[in-house]
Amino acid sequence: MSGLVRKLHVSPVLVGARALSSSSIVYAGNAPSKAHYFVEIPDSSFPKGFQATASHCGVKKKAGVLDLSVILSTSPRNSSAACFTRNVFKAAPVQVSTDVLRLSGGRARALVINSGCANAVTGTQGLQDAWSMVRATDALLPEIEGKKPENETLVLSTGVIGQLLPIQKITNGIADLKASMGTGFKAWELAARAFMTTDTFPKLRARTFKLNGVDVRIAGIDKGAGMIHPNMGPPPGPPHATLLGFIATDAAVSPGSLQSALTYAVDRSFNSISVDGDMSTNDTIIAMANGASGMEKEIDEKADPEAYEVFRDELTSFATELAQLVVRDGEGATKFVTVSVEGAPTYEDAHRIASTISTSALVKCALFGEDANWGRILCAVGYAPVSCVDPTKVSVSFVPSDGSSDLALLVNGEPQAVDEARASQILEKEDLEIRVTLGVGNEGAKYYTCDFSHEYVTINGSYRS
Amino acid sequence: MSGLVRKLHVSPVLVGARALSSSSIVYAGNAPSKAHYFVEIPDSSFPKGFQATASHCGVKKKAGVLDLSVILSTSPRNSSAACFTRNVFKAAPVQVSTDVLRLSGGRARALVINSGCANAVTGTQGLQDAWSMVRATDALLPEIEGKKPENETLVLSTGVIGQLLPIQKITNGIADLKASMGTGFKAWELAARAFMTTDTFPKLRARTFKLNGVDVRIAGIDKGAGMIHPNMGPPPGPPHATLLGFIATDAAVSPGSLQSALTYAVDRSFNSISVDGDMSTNDTIIAMANGASGMEKEIDEKADPEAYEVFRDELTSFATELAQLVVRDGEGATKFVTVSVEGAPTYEDAHRIASTISTSALVKCALFGEDANWGRILCAVGYAPVSCVDPTKVSVSFVPSDGSSDLALLVNGEPQAVDEARASQILEKEDLEIRVTLGVGNEGAKYYTCDFSHEYVTINGSYRS
Repeated sequence: MSGLVRKLHVSPVLVGARALSSSSIVYAGNAPSKAHYFVEIPDSSFPKGFQATASHCGVKKKAGVLDLSVILSTSPRNSSAACFTRNVFKAAPVQVSTDVLRLSGGRARALVINSGCANAVTGTQGLQDAWSMVRATDALLPEIEGKKPENETLVLSTGVIGQLLPIQKITNGIADLKASMGTGFKAWELAARAFMTTDTFPKLRARTFKLNGVDVRIAGIDKGAGMIHPNMGPPPGPPHATLLGFIATDAAVSPGSLQSALTYAVDRSFNSISVDGDMSTNDTIIAMANGASGMEKEIDEKADPEAYEVFRDELTSFATELAQLVVRDGEGATKFVTVSVEGAPTYEDAHRIASTISTSALVKCALFGEDANWGRILCAVGYAPVSCVDPTKVSVSFVPSDGSSDLALLVNGEPQAVDEARASQILEKEDLEIRVTLGVGNEGAKYYTCDFSHEYVTINGSYRS
Repeated sequence: MSGLVRKLHVSPVLVGARALSSSSIVYAGNAPSKAHYFVEIPDSSFPKGFQATASHCGVKKKAGVLDLSVILSTSPRNSSAACFTRNVFKAAPVQVSTDVLRLSGGRARALVINSGCANAVTGTQGLQDAWSMVRATDALLPEIEGKKPENETLVLSTGVIGQLLPIQKITNGIADLKASMGTGFKAWELAARAFMTTDTFPKLRARTFKLNGVDVRIAGIDKGAGMIHPNMGPPPGPPHATLLGFIATDAAVSPGSLQSALTYAVDRSFNSISVDGDMSTNDTIIAMANGASGMEKEIDEKADPEAYEVFRDELTSFATELAQLVVRDGEGATKFVTVSVEGAPTYEDAHRIASTISTSALVKCALFGEDANWGRILCAVGYAPVSCVDPTKVSVSFVPSDGSSDLALLVNGEPQAVDEARASQILEKEDLEIRVTLGVGNEGAKYYTCDFSHEYVTINGSYRS
């Protein structure tokens, strides 16, 4: 009960609440605001040779709300790569972007984004509309060696499934964007805002690092709060989520190596988060590397494996930061939980178990209620689709976010006498790590998840209204 | 929003509610009462040769609340069979019942049940406690041909995971039950009540049918409202859920044929329901057939396949009725939804897709909000773990519960113009069928699920309190 009472206490809008019985709890709504995760970033951290802007073109009903964005690379040596949903019902923008990536030989230079409508399950008209967005955005690109840009734009759409885009408004809107293209923090912020659906803050990060002795910059935006349980692979692999993200760097990386690095990074970041276990028809992460930092040679996995690994690991770390913002802003979320599974025979086994715990409705409700109901964690380990679990070797502990000592709940299959006061101390914090040790190998994986609140139900009981 | 407003209207406890914004909805709790699903049944429908009773022995804190029950067969020719959870963390009663079934050669005659504590993840002490329950209940059984009953009792426990049973209270309680054993509706009702945890009504059904010209009777009890997504198989198969059920008949059936029929029935009934997608450590369904109807020969699958099929199909139909009661009483549920998947290449494909739709948090929230958000249904079909879905051949429709005509939402992958008023008419009813046609085969499967409400979160945020 304490968790529910706590909700009432932190709620900014509290309506005459009195707990009458466990089945008549009054919930006044409002997960805590996450706006403080939107931070200002110096212009110097943003990659050179990229321009961005956004506008309201009318996909969303409310006047002035951003719903359209274009980001493009002005560099002639741009590489691009993508990971797309593995859902069988790939949305039109996913299908079209897969084609564009192939047709451009991994050299697409622009990205167009609309929010408010996912252009998913929209049949042949949906495909035509996505191609119209490609052509309208291609027209904004500068020519390279006198060649008119064609099939150089990747498309992202997010919003309601099963409705057609107001395509005329969108193509008109794209043409109008030419005048407002800009660089730096303010320009990228516009793009991040145009991404948002149920997100409560624009998700934007940037940083710098050294690659082959050169200072390079990386920036990224993403969006997503619900229908989050991505499983994305490189094209033309089978499709899955609505998580959308774009990462740009002014490092020089060959298209093939950019794809390898992105696939590796996405597996360990965006494919390792869950809000509600629902994998969308539109999930897409796009990366571009345009070499505008002045690096002479493109990094190649085979020719220069050391530099490639530095780049891949920086990309993975950056993608993880962006992915975690989505979990922070999970619909109705009040907790940010890291699920670590260690001692597994393979990464895949560890990842599957971490995913199963992160998706359990009962575990997530207990986290919301700040209830140390570790039996539910165990139970989820027990039904994970793996064959490596030996019940007598499993240990489970809570790892507090303040650096204080762990709380052992289960050791080698034997339950521990749990100090409930200490458990409550740990659980009342926003951040928590659940650590599961299998004791049957040396591999591990991390998953990031949030709790399941009344607010989630409220948001998703009336999403289309 | 309409769904949420509706909740407020039906809510028996309404506390000064005014919708301030979508994030400050006031929810006054209380899913509608399900008490009308508990119905009186004539004594003549209950199988002969079974006795039942229950008491409060002190596992549950509140005085007078039933938490212990014994049901036994007084017939010397009793057959028994069981399906157990496939969760790796099999609770002690599951492990012990598996052993008893083997040791008794499928002839166990008694069942002991406690609620309030699941005796799961309780190590060696948990196993010893479950064996103590077996011995205490064996002592209530009449001798057969002068032989002292030994290893003839199956054990069921339900409640919190990771706590030890108060075993002395339980064994004392079992000994005291001898005096109150009875037959017929009132005796069975006691057993059904002792099963309950978050259930809002005791789940008890009975019926009669003809088998080889003889009138036979079948009765059953079950429990479960949360942690419901069973996947049970016959022993010694790998273990999954907390759904518990017991079915007794006075038909005469050999132990092997009773197990075959039960495995078939459980796949199509208890293994085809979901409340929250969490598979418990304790799920168990037990069946007994004692021949007390006067049938001369035990039915055997090989010797008399026709009679076996009649029995198997009656058992499946009866098990489905019991399983549906669990979904009706799902924690916080306001809807009862049948998910039918047709036109699949195999039963397993259809079953997996139906399971994925039934478990989607987004689909279940939309059902709670009475929102015809069929894109979420499609999305779940698209990430189901099968390889048979052709997006251009999938159709989806709502089938109303009042016999009026279906509402097509998607036909061969093309979205239909949906009459939202008609959709609302269908969705505001308690019962609904979602029908998905794959168009790639002739097999089908049904799943039964409920919606996801604020009440579910409330119940599971404070389960241990």
